Amino acid sequence: MAELHPVCAPLAFLLGTWRGAGAGVYPSIEDFWYTEEVSFTHVGKPFVAYVQKTKDAGTGLPLHAEAGYLRPQGDGRVEMVLVQPSGIAELLEGAVEGCNLKLASTAVLGTASAKPVTATERRFWADGEALCSSVAMAAMGMELQHHVVSEMHRLP
Amino acid sequence: MAELHPVCAPLAFLLGTWRGAGAGVYPSIEDFWYTEEVSFTHVGKPFVAYVQKTKDAGTGLPLHAEAGYLRPQGDGRVEMVLVQPSGIAELLEGAVEGCNLKLASTAVLGTASAKPVTATERRFWADGEALCSSVAMAAMGMELQHHVVSEMHRLP
Repeated sequence: MAELHPVCAPLAFLLGTWRGAGAGVYPSIEDFWYTEEVSFTHVGKPFVAYVQKTKDAGTGLPLHAEAGYLRPQGDGRVEMVLVQPSGIAELLEGAVEGCNLKLASTAVLGTASAKPVTATERRFWADGEALCSSVAMAAMGMELQHHVVSEMHRLP
Repeated sequence: MAELHPVCAPLAFLLGTWRGAGAGVYPSIEDFWYTEEVSFTHVGKPFVAYVQKTKDAGTGLPLHAEAGYLRPQGDGRVEMVLVQPSGIAELLEGAVEGCNLKLASTAVLGTASAKPVTATERRFWADGEALCSSVAMAAMGMELQHHVVSEMHRLP
């Protein structure tokens, strides 16, 4: 078990594997409910790896997934790179203040077959023992708006 | 265990977890040798998830990592989205022919603190029971050229 790189210390509240429930809305689709599992891990280097998977709350079938890396800059600023199996790659920038990480996209790219996503805002924050996450998204020609929110608890 | 989505069938040769050894060169750095572990997984949806980690062959310390998704298009064409903890996000396009997947970047983006990478070519191919991978890269202002190659065997 490597020691946490000092620049990652402000992100220590994220480390571990978390599971919980979330809800999603968007004008172009039906409301949906899901179970979510995320993990934040480190190897002693100045980044934190992130992987996420969700399942439909009703059927248990796989819904969404994403993977990326957080790059804390040592002064509170944090960069993130993120990909989704829908063919989307995002660069994000933001800041961590206490147990509250807020990021906004600086670039969103899609493969030829991906749906058009133009911007996202992502937030991870601690609420007592829980870890919450939310995503706002501008997609399908619509303006940036709330998309999903979840609350998870750390797995032992 | 979900059934493989039909469009993923041409990528079935990749599925599983593989471990092996690789070697890297680039004009801006010393030659290096590494152990590599990659996994290709699916959940029954029309994509294959990819994660990779390497360790220094001498010290065992973590070296590189990357994560992404392959999106087969059903006609031999394959899209890929990929991120690296160095702050790089890539979109790639290419094709799978038999047990040979060749991809070239259509866009490479870096966060503010990332090193300048402008293009990559990535290849995964079966060689008997082995899975081989190679990456060519244009970075640090240099032209596209061979960077790493590895040969791995499937873990039980």
